Amino acid sequence: MMHDDIARQVADRVNAARLIESIDALAAFGARDDGGVNRPALGERDIEARRFLIERARALGCSVSVDACANLFIRRDGDTALAPVMTGSHIDTQPTGGKLDGCYGVLAGFEVLAALNDANVRTRRPLEVAIWTNEEGTRFSPGAMGSSAFVEPSRMTRYADVRDVDGVTLRAALDAHHAAFPELGARGSHDAAHAFVELHIEQGPQLENAGVPLAVVSGIQGVRWYALHCAGTAAHAGTTPMPLRRDAMTLAIALHRELDGVAHELGRDDTRVTFGRWNVEPNSINTIPSAVTFIVDFRHPDARVLAAFDERAHAIAQRHGARLEALFSHAPVAFDAAVLSRIDDACRALDANALHLTSGAFHDAMYLAQHCASGMLFVPSRGGISHNPAEATDAGHLVLGARVLAHCLTTLCND
Amino acid sequence: MMHDDIARQVADRVNAARLIESIDALAAFGARDDGGVNRPALGERDIEARRFLIERARALGCSVSVDACANLFIRRDGDTALAPVMTGSHIDTQPTGGKLDGCYGVLAGFEVLAALNDANVRTRRPLEVAIWTNEEGTRFSPGAMGSSAFVEPSRMTRYADVRDVDGVTLRAALDAHHAAFPELGARGSHDAAHAFVELHIEQGPQLENAGVPLAVVSGIQGVRWYALHCAGTAAHAGTTPMPLRRDAMTLAIALHRELDGVAHELGRDDTRVTFGRWNVEPNSINTIPSAVTFIVDFRHPDARVLAAFDERAHAIAQRHGARLEALFSHAPVAFDAAVLSRIDDACRALDANALHLTSGAFHDAMYLAQHCASGMLFVPSRGGISHNPAEATDAGHLVLGARVLAHCLTTLCND
Repeated sequence: MMHDDIARQVADRVNAARLIESIDALAAFGARDDGGVNRPALGERDIEARRFLIERARALGCSVSVDACANLFIRRDGDTALAPVMTGSHIDTQPTGGKLDGCYGVLAGFEVLAALNDANVRTRRPLEVAIWTNEEGTRFSPGAMGSSAFVEPSRMTRYADVRDVDGVTLRAALDAHHAAFPELGARGSHDAAHAFVELHIEQGPQLENAGVPLAVVSGIQGVRWYALHCAGTAAHAGTTPMPLRRDAMTLAIALHRELDGVAHELGRDDTRVTFGRWNVEPNSINTIPSAVTFIVDFRHPDARVLAAFDERAHAIAQRHGARLEALFSHAPVAFDAAVLSRIDDACRALDANALHLTSGAFHDAMYLAQHCASGMLFVPSRGGISHNPAEATDAGHLVLGARVLAHCLTTLCND
Repeated sequence: MMHDDIARQVADRVNAARLIESIDALAAFGARDDGGVNRPALGERDIEARRFLIERARALGCSVSVDACANLFIRRDGDTALAPVMTGSHIDTQPTGGKLDGCYGVLAGFEVLAALNDANVRTRRPLEVAIWTNEEGTRFSPGAMGSSAFVEPSRMTRYADVRDVDGVTLRAALDAHHAAFPELGARGSHDAAHAFVELHIEQGPQLENAGVPLAVVSGIQGVRWYALHCAGTAAHAGTTPMPLRRDAMTLAIALHRELDGVAHELGRDDTRVTFGRWNVEPNSINTIPSAVTFIVDFRHPDARVLAAFDERAHAIAQRHGARLEALFSHAPVAFDAAVLSRIDDACRALDANALHLTSGAFHDAMYLAQHCASGMLFVPSRGGISHNPAEATDAGHLVLGARVLAHCLTTLCND
């Protein structure tokens, strides 16, 4: 039997009802009254959800191991001891999260394991479904802790002391996880995986707008976050003539105007620029603002554009006498061409229409790309909505995504 | 003896040391560690301060009465039962207030009472120093409660149920005041006063900038407060292409630009426009704002300009699909020409340089102007600073203001 035929056979064993049932079953852990999910990383509900998935993994005949950041690895052995193919995502959610962000990728991975079993297919390489810890970064900051610590284990020294809002350290949360699952062995190999493919909802409106059910994700935009600190002098709104004012909001709005203009000028149609957070002091109706801090989130797939924006933003702040503070930056990620072409092949083999796009959101695959050849696949988000109880994807799209994943993981496992 | 000579004689009896001592003595009630004062209206410290002033008033041979809003009236009888001349201000402060806002006007009134005694002058009309309750509006909203209720007693029906942040009603606070001073009689006359003159710190930088020690205040600017409610759709800052966004902050900044432009176009040099309060939802770095509300505070001495701004602001909001909410409005006040000329005369008689200006801040005199012929006199604020522990005025300016007040009250009392 040709590899392509095997991959097709596995994809055909993807079971729509079983996939949808698993999404609803996982969503019960931390279910919100509004239909959403609230499941903070390594909290009680996350531990229960992990127990549920570990039991399912064992029922599928898989072994389960864990690493220093409580990432779980559900392994289906291959015929050889070659480097495994990996898939997966995360199961922690935003406080007002939905059922799909992260969970869909993990559960589609489980569905591929079941489909491989049902098709009675043995692969050359092992297949591992990873559950990455604390991707959202809501309980412990920063996000993507699990995947970044997997790729660069020395990060754990810093991460261990991070505290949640209740003062609980990541170290203590990891101890609690260990106490809950004392039987789990440590993941053996630290060799690079053969490939990593992450299936995720788009969390944006582009697929829906284009009327296309899948996207092969060519990379992840780079991002820069800057805080602009604007100083003024608090004074009475009624008694201070305009020429004698030093109004921090007037300064902030002038900066906003220039930064917004430069973002569009440099980045053209690929620019995404957002001024989402503003802090105004004293924030009183009749007092001239003494201090305004706002944050600009600038994203672009081209590292040269990000560097040019960086330079212009510093110059603008300096010219206006504002203080620019660089809060966060991440370089654009280009996924592996060979992995992307395998995903393209899988789409074609299953007659699934797909477009190529750059991810605007971060994902665990952003870090995995530093570890092994990686790629991503998106299904549409209804209305582009995510991080919201209303997060939804048509069942047909969810099933199609899992079928393409099954196809390309099977071929990668037989490399 | 000519009236002018008598007024000069009283002004000369203004005692600098006694005036400064009284300012420091009153500031002890609610003194802050940073040199400022925190004395909420009708709170414990305000009651103690009132007890201190009532004792001083009696020591000066004056009678003290009270009205329904706990305004206190310190009365020095005249030779006749003609309508009294009034002066005074308030002694409640901002939470981070200074020693002078309001207090200076009250204590200068006390100093005039003492100077009249020292000069052994009997006036034709009675002189009353009023202490208006809750001018700041910090404990109970709105401000200028005492003076507005004095002028329009029916307001008490509404005011009585207003609660402070701890849920205490004004009614309960007034009961506590009554319990503290059960011996105070109700103010007898409800006839209009002959005139009201309020001495106050400028709370702005104009006198200091002009190098002039006094201002005769020709009126109080009118003001309009509008909230602009801008709606957007929360979405991911990374995944949502610019043309598909509905960004509430982008809308708010477009509105700000137009409103700011119209304010300057209509009001020219007399415009004062402030955008001091901003509320951004969800105020997250990487989420497109779903709602922004900001407030515009527009002030101008000309009622026609205020009306034109009103019309333009409504049109701008409508054109942009934003909701405009009118929060507060007060018409400009023009003080009484005859009272102003008496203040001018007093300045001239004492060789004090004075300019004329319009008050940008509200004062109790704004309401008293509806009750009787009224006017105001300002002394400079160092650095234009007020509502701040650093609030200060040179001692020489404080004394000069009290001398001019003594002069013009004496002449008004002999009308």
